[in-house]
Amino acid sequence: MGLLIVGSIALDSVETPFDKVENALGGSTTYISLASSYFTYPIHIVGVVGEDFPAEYIEMLENHEIDTEGLQIIPGGKTFRWGGRYHYDLNVRDTLFTDLNVFENFDPIIPEKSKKNSFVLLGNIVPSLQNKVLDQLENPKFVVCDTMNLWIETTKDDLLDVLKRVDVLIINDSEARLLSNEPNLIKAAKIIQTLGPKYLIIKKGEHGALLFNDTTIFSAPAYPLENIYDPTGAGDSFAGGFIGYLHQTRDLSFENLKRAVIYGSALASFCVEQFSTKGIEYLDKLQIHDRFLEFRELSRFDDDE
Amino acid sequence: MGLLIVGSIALDSVETPFDKVENALGGSTTYISLASSYFTYPIHIVGVVGEDFPAEYIEMLENHEIDTEGLQIIPGGKTFRWGGRYHYDLNVRDTLFTDLNVFENFDPIIPEKSKKNSFVLLGNIVPSLQNKVLDQLENPKFVVCDTMNLWIETTKDDLLDVLKRVDVLIINDSEARLLSNEPNLIKAAKIIQTLGPKYLIIKKGEHGALLFNDTTIFSAPAYPLENIYDPTGAGDSFAGGFIGYLHQTRDLSFENLKRAVIYGSALASFCVEQFSTKGIEYLDKLQIHDRFLEFRELSRFDDDE
Repeated sequence: MGLLIVGSIALDSVETPFDKVENALGGSTTYISLASSYFTYPIHIVGVVGEDFPAEYIEMLENHEIDTEGLQIIPGGKTFRWGGRYHYDLNVRDTLFTDLNVFENFDPIIPEKSKKNSFVLLGNIVPSLQNKVLDQLENPKFVVCDTMNLWIETTKDDLLDVLKRVDVLIINDSEARLLSNEPNLIKAAKIIQTLGPKYLIIKKGEHGALLFNDTTIFSAPAYPLENIYDPTGAGDSFAGGFIGYLHQTRDLSFENLKRAVIYGSALASFCVEQFSTKGIEYLDKLQIHDRFLEFRELSRFDDDE
Repeated sequence: MGLLIVGSIALDSVETPFDKVENALGGSTTYISLASSYFTYPIHIVGVVGEDFPAEYIEMLENHEIDTEGLQIIPGGKTFRWGGRYHYDLNVRDTLFTDLNVFENFDPIIPEKSKKNSFVLLGNIVPSLQNKVLDQLENPKFVVCDTMNLWIETTKDDLLDVLKRVDVLIINDSEARLLSNEPNLIKAAKIIQTLGPKYLIIKKGEHGALLFNDTTIFSAPAYPLENIYDPTGAGDSFAGGFIGYLHQTRDLSFENLKRAVIYGSALASFCVEQFSTKGIEYLDKLQIHDRFLEFRELSRFDDDE
């Protein structure tokens, strides 16, 4: 059974201290599906775009063997557009504009053939829609969910409903602190795990990521990047690499989840090396595995006994 | 040949959200020498205190087989006192007072027998004094140096002179950015390495530490602490564990430096579990090695091939 990915599809205008692009391919579904396409298939995406959405972008996704049957193209509609500007240190960004357009009335309808998908990645959309996606599925085996500060602050009850239904929650450190109301990340993780998710991943940007189950913690290093051209999509590329590897291996042991976190980190590191989705459009498996091995070398040390 | 440690000795008054202590044992020399005492001997300290310095503190250091011949006790003088208050998240602290007292005129005189010490830890003191210490030594084999924002901002030229003479610089991430004038830590490390140190360690608090040589990076995880009682002395305990292990093993390979970073991290994690030096006064070797193994488990993952 396949991998279902539901989230946003956007045209992004991004400025960094180095360069700028306009109407580049963006959105969580886009990054997640591209990142996971190096590991597994079939991948089914569900999302919405306007009539203005460039056909070449759909073609590029299909060339990665991503099934776009669930992609709704609204006649006369305009695609979701987001504009952002990154500061000098690339850790802070300002949103310049958010034009939801057709995304405002997004109704995620899962195609019949995709309802039996066993692995599901709920990209960062309003929690009530994440719930609606889950309602349509027939007994999914493994559900991974992303969210953001906005939903924790404005629709927490809906989010808590989603969390009862997911296997893995992926959030960043500030979101973890906000969701748990606890500054210590280790305590925050314990609190969040009582809300439902069997596993929790806390992304820490340039400091790597933490994976928690109920008894164990895995600390993944960050790839030492000297040149980050565009941080947009890093978190979604992480999620895509993570679930793509798990769907490929069908092994949900903690040891394999650790490897999945490293593959997710690898895809995130490729993503930020170029603008928009360019960093994850032209990869190959050998290149990805080489980076996996670099992560291993980065954090490996031997006992002295 | 022994290990020489030069730095401050203080009486600290510390408030955290959990508790407070007054006139507790503090200072970089204190934490460094205690942490290193679990690994090696002889350890010689050089520092200054006033007549008010409690004899029981000196006795406690001597019970750890730390040689206090280089400890100057100024008749009629008052010991350096520092007061600080930690915020709720323990990542931010306010300095409440700094009474330098006898530390203001500290003249680090190295006892004759200690001039041949092969390993030297220059704790965080004004760089001109760090230079003066090095001037007195006979061809030290391995010099590790700590510093702080204040010296980078006010006495940078003296600091640059010190850096030409040290093997390892240990600083935190904000100090690395300040010293290099570069926000990207990987680029910052390269810039700092051109200033002299063969190895650089960047401490990142709750995010672990990075060790750099000219070609390789090692990323050490942070120990997942739920309860941090007092962060004071964590960096100095790190430095003590690091140089203590290296002095014990006399192995300066990069592989062994990695292990030393983990032992340093282990000592720092014990330090913050209790107030003042209490967390590193009553350890044993087995306990320290067990924590080393916990660090290994925390970051270990296997290849899937």
